[in-house]
Amino acid sequence: MSKQQIGVIGLAVMGKNLALNIESRGFTVSVYNRSPEKTKELIAEAPGKKLVGTYSIEEFVASLETPRRILIMVKAGGPTDDTIKQLVPHLDKGDILIDGGNSYFPDTQRRTKELEAQGIRFIGTGVSGGEEGALKGPSIMPGGQKSAYELVEPILTAISAKVNGEPCCTYIGPDGAGHYVKMVHNGIEYGDMQLICEAYQLLKDVTQADTKELHDIFAEWNRGELDSYLIEITTDIFTKTDPDTGKPMVDVILDAAGQKGTGKWTSQSALDLGVPLSIITESVFSRFLSAMKEERVAASKVLKGPAAKPYDGDRKAFIEAVRKALYASKICSYAQGFAQMRAASEEYGWDLQYGEIAKIFRGGCIIRARFLQNITDAYKRNPELKNLLLDDYFRGVVESYQDAWREVVAVAVSRGIPAPAFASALAYFDSYRTERLPANLLQAQRDYFGAHTFQRVDKEGTFHFQWMDS
Amino acid sequence: MSKQQIGVIGLAVMGKNLALNIESRGFTVSVYNRSPEKTKELIAEAPGKKLVGTYSIEEFVASLETPRRILIMVKAGGPTDDTIKQLVPHLDKGDILIDGGNSYFPDTQRRTKELEAQGIRFIGTGVSGGEEGALKGPSIMPGGQKSAYELVEPILTAISAKVNGEPCCTYIGPDGAGHYVKMVHNGIEYGDMQLICEAYQLLKDVTQADTKELHDIFAEWNRGELDSYLIEITTDIFTKTDPDTGKPMVDVILDAAGQKGTGKWTSQSALDLGVPLSIITESVFSRFLSAMKEERVAASKVLKGPAAKPYDGDRKAFIEAVRKALYASKICSYAQGFAQMRAASEEYGWDLQYGEIAKIFRGGCIIRARFLQNITDAYKRNPELKNLLLDDYFRGVVESYQDAWREVVAVAVSRGIPAPAFASALAYFDSYRTERLPANLLQAQRDYFGAHTFQRVDKEGTFHFQWMDS
Repeated sequence: MSKQQIGVIGLAVMGKNLALNIESRGFTVSVYNRSPEKTKELIAEAPGKKLVGTYSIEEFVASLETPRRILIMVKAGGPTDDTIKQLVPHLDKGDILIDGGNSYFPDTQRRTKELEAQGIRFIGTGVSGGEEGALKGPSIMPGGQKSAYELVEPILTAISAKVNGEPCCTYIGPDGAGHYVKMVHNGIEYGDMQLICEAYQLLKDVTQADTKELHDIFAEWNRGELDSYLIEITTDIFTKTDPDTGKPMVDVILDAAGQKGTGKWTSQSALDLGVPLSIITESVFSRFLSAMKEERVAASKVLKGPAAKPYDGDRKAFIEAVRKALYASKICSYAQGFAQMRAASEEYGWDLQYGEIAKIFRGGCIIRARFLQNITDAYKRNPELKNLLLDDYFRGVVESYQDAWREVVAVAVSRGIPAPAFASALAYFDSYRTERLPANLLQAQRDYFGAHTFQRVDKEGTFHFQWMDS
Repeated sequence: MSKQQIGVIGLAVMGKNLALNIESRGFTVSVYNRSPEKTKELIAEAPGKKLVGTYSIEEFVASLETPRRILIMVKAGGPTDDTIKQLVPHLDKGDILIDGGNSYFPDTQRRTKELEAQGIRFIGTGVSGGEEGALKGPSIMPGGQKSAYELVEPILTAISAKVNGEPCCTYIGPDGAGHYVKMVHNGIEYGDMQLICEAYQLLKDVTQADTKELHDIFAEWNRGELDSYLIEITTDIFTKTDPDTGKPMVDVILDAAGQKGTGKWTSQSALDLGVPLSIITESVFSRFLSAMKEERVAASKVLKGPAAKPYDGDRKAFIEAVRKALYASKICSYAQGFAQMRAASEEYGWDLQYGEIAKIFRGGCIIRARFLQNITDAYKRNPELKNLLLDDYFRGVVESYQDAWREVVAVAVSRGIPAPAFASALAYFDSYRTERLPANLLQAQRDYFGAHTFQRVDKEGTFHFQWMDS
């Protein structure tokens, strides 16, 4: 019996769709799942395809060409460790395990070390694009040994999304780099979604736009510089009607957001690295607040905000101002996310290529957007760019949009409409461009109560002042 | 030779001052330090005191009454583990180790388990008040076995600060509870300091107040509901002149804040617990931003904000509005911090007593303030209070101050003055009291691209919509 070119273990929706995607590009694939039903189902669904069902780990491993390439698509955490543990005794030195789940990057770093000690190569790869992306072409962010990547590159680039003929897959860096970049991608996704939600709330509350008009506004936005998958699906969401009630779908959905933890990890890593990541973090906190539905309903009955009043400004101008606020805030969010990747790259020695990363985000993944090309271009102009806000294109947008952005935040503040991500983005922009922040007072306080010392503006060194005896 | 009642190991400033404090309350104390010079220095500085210097671990342990009470005052992390490791072989079952450093609470949980397995009792205690507090009376937050606490209670309450004759020390809860509460205390301290800094920046930039006037403003504030240690030292800081330049001290200090990590831990724990902790987290991020001094100086030369213009409003009214914004934001910050303690108490089974915690924060520690009595009172009125904002006193303040608060944030936003903590506090207040947040759209997006399902407003259950086929 001939051997297959790659094996996929774990046939839930992502694993199954990736297996079908790989097969559709002309590769032969062995598949295995802990419960054999899923394997049988997949084989039955895909007659005549180069998919080979296997029903034991031994059979699965034995069915593969060497060095073996095995894509693990199981739940992140314990299940991934268990799967690796089951596979390893059957592998040969030089075989390659590929973890395509949403693994926490320190786990990937640990697994790389453990497997390297046993002669097994390991790739931790981000795969973004949801169910549909997995089947038709996701964005792929592989990290691990370069030698291992070269052996899986033909398959990964073949199955990835393409933008202008270029695959949305590139080697990210050693060990946890791929999963790290995927984590930041997801954090950015949290930020994008929160910013869209704040725009939605403002349009709904201030301009009283109904679902039909919201659709038209987002459709219009999607034709311009905000053109992106998330704006596109938002536009589409506003067209959907609930068959049960006849109401817009969006109106029957409960305002309690779920999350799977990658946004939280992004914030926690930023805190470890000393990187200000306020927009994504406010987005995570906003999901927490949304989930406190009962508590909010109770609070809404006792905590009074400003009296509601009709908007007496220019409605059309306000809608355009919200668009500008959204785009300027989004730029700040990406500036923070890319600054975080830069700090991580230095901390972990990954040598990340920011322009290439933006490039593979252009297609396949949830945050795909026209403006990612501007990020790639910015890093092409200056590979050492410290912050996206310093690039001429982004600086120009944010500077020229800031009046509208400030107006929108001020309207939200005065009317009592929560816009934490818009506001934190603006505070970040204003902090970042402020030569003298008030932290001199903070340093004085720290030296006063804890003798923590301070630096001076006029000479080098570390100083302490006798606050209480002077 | 008679035995001492307690031992202190680690004689850096905090350990030394605590040893002197304990001795001054009539207890006999053995002291030990890795390098004997510090021990000799302390003994030489304190002639005639009931302090006994010891020069080996064996001698130190042998010099103590049983069950032994040993206060460890070394650097958190590895040094604490090392010290415990050195002590344990010389201890008897039932002896009590007390870690008074700023340990990370999961370390305290782990050490409790490890030491319990060896029959050693362990107390992890927060000690707040800086050098001066350690000597004269800190706020003390002990966690661990109740039986161990009872044996150290007479000493800890004796050395603690007193407010109206009540000691600022109370049993917090099992294992990591004391260090957890100290961590949140420090996070709240970050928030308080950032809020004061933002008030300072606004007064300086908008009303052009000079250091003399800033002193007068803060002195006035300290006579009212903002009365607190941090406002008091800020008032004092504004009176200090740099002997080298003759300028106000605060003006020669570099605006680059340091930090030791407890604020970061607080934010990371809130993220783990699903608690929105935006104000403290923005404060941590603001310290990061302040430390990026060179990058900010460069950015300030290329990123332009709104043109500066003189303030044409009522100057005195604006100063009072800043005071109100500061107090309202501070209330939100404590609401978040106490909500976090509540979530931690449920997660770790600590049964925290929030009113008692606020009570011991009233004296000795860095965040000591008149308004902590209001928190104690709020929990006395309702021990099950879910959020401080729902208490009548705090609700009343925030509701009646909100117009001024909104005005201050709007002024900051329109003039390009960063006020991330003021703004995030307001966004929290507005989110918390909003019955319907825009997370319904977010849930629609998640269901659209990832089939993550959603709940409905009109019936129980979990739903998925066929977005692409309808």
